[in-house]
Amino acid sequence: MLNMTTNFYVPPSAVRGQRVVLPEEETHHLQSVLRAQAGDEIVVVDGEGGWHRLRIDHLGSDQVVGTIQETRQDVGEPDVHVTVGMGLLTKRSRFETFVEKAVELGVGRIVPLHTRHTEPETLRRERVRNVMIAALKQCRRSRLPALAEPQSLDAVLDATAADVRLLCDGAPDRPPLSQAVGELEAAAQVLVLVGPEGGFAPKEVEGAEAAGCTPVSLGPRRLRAETAGLAAVNAVMLSRARQQGAA
Amino acid sequence: MLNMTTNFYVPPSAVRGQRVVLPEEETHHLQSVLRAQAGDEIVVVDGEGGWHRLRIDHLGSDQVVGTIQETRQDVGEPDVHVTVGMGLLTKRSRFETFVEKAVELGVGRIVPLHTRHTEPETLRRERVRNVMIAALKQCRRSRLPALAEPQSLDAVLDATAADVRLLCDGAPDRPPLSQAVGELEAAAQVLVLVGPEGGFAPKEVEGAEAAGCTPVSLGPRRLRAETAGLAAVNAVMLSRARQQGAA
Repeated sequence: MLNMTTNFYVPPSAVRGQRVVLPEEETHHLQSVLRAQAGDEIVVVDGEGGWHRLRIDHLGSDQVVGTIQETRQDVGEPDVHVTVGMGLLTKRSRFETFVEKAVELGVGRIVPLHTRHTEPETLRRERVRNVMIAALKQCRRSRLPALAEPQSLDAVLDATAADVRLLCDGAPDRPPLSQAVGELEAAAQVLVLVGPEGGFAPKEVEGAEAAGCTPVSLGPRRLRAETAGLAAVNAVMLSRARQQGAA
Repeated sequence: MLNMTTNFYVPPSAVRGQRVVLPEEETHHLQSVLRAQAGDEIVVVDGEGGWHRLRIDHLGSDQVVGTIQETRQDVGEPDVHVTVGMGLLTKRSRFETFVEKAVELGVGRIVPLHTRHTEPETLRRERVRNVMIAALKQCRRSRLPALAEPQSLDAVLDATAADVRLLCDGAPDRPPLSQAVGELEAAAQVLVLVGPEGGFAPKEVEGAEAAGCTPVSLGPRRLRAETAGLAAVNAVMLSRARQQGAA
């Protein structure tokens, strides 16, 4: 048996009945790094909730073929779908740090935002997607969070169905997030908005409130944008875990 | 008035009665970047809980002198002291990401750990300290968290007084952290232990339990070590904020 430290990722099209063909990237890791052999077992996830325990039948130079021994659904997935709208950041590495850790913490969808205080930044989309896949494998989830195209605050407010909508605001007189997430009990979908380095403009906060957002504070310390996003996702997940523990 | 986005940091020795002399590093930022002038007001913190609103009297080429207008104590500080013992990580940048965000989230003391599964890694101590000071200024705390010398798990368990001791463990059958932090109410000092990439060895977990640690789980997804540390600090702070909101 392999000493497996992460799962493997295959697109759903790689699963054909009980047979799975691993793509080339994964093949290399399995053969050269892990020295896998026929008969070894691995776990593959398809990014759409499918989780399969696989026995390796054959290792070729550019593909690995296995047979499914056990299939499960939504392993590692939370029971709440959290969309985070996150202002694009001047330092792209900080945005990528956010993405990695948001995947680990259970985010469902990431929407990069263009806002009034956002510098005209772009997203290295392919790179961000690779960060997400690596995090998916590492943290043993089975669903790859969606990565939306960068868009405006209005666009995400229009297009996102959510029972609870929170806007993280720097203003100290807002109710704390910990209080707002206490009301999440029945929410199946949550939207959290986090501004870029300069925060949201007052007009943006007004518009979000008109669209049903509750401005919340993340406490007495001013968090960096990416830290705010992580703290908010973590708070939602902790709140759900606590409620389930109490139920 | 300056458009101040961060506080300034001075060592306590720079505060002499009502007079404060800013060190050279801060002088440069004030003059060249912010274009400060005599009469402008800034906030300086001394890293030991002192918070001062300062009027600038004089800007020289290598120092800035100001007069204190208002002094407050422990601005931005939590009412619980959290020590995080964190396994040194193979990638030093990941340890530094942890340090930055732990300061923002309110950590009181960081202890880098040598553990059985820790590669023989070192700490770029001066660099880590600079990350901590930058985070202190940015998030508007007034106390600079302590940074201990790298040490063993036994050493930190021996030397840390804490009402609550938690060890973050990957095993899925542990009680969730959210449940354990529900018992923090009266705790003034909390110790949280987080292993390196490979986690703690079973012997280490046994030793920690014998020293009064409760092993806890961080949920169904396996978090990277630095994410686990941040999630744990955040959970403690959220728990306290919720209790205060309820009180």
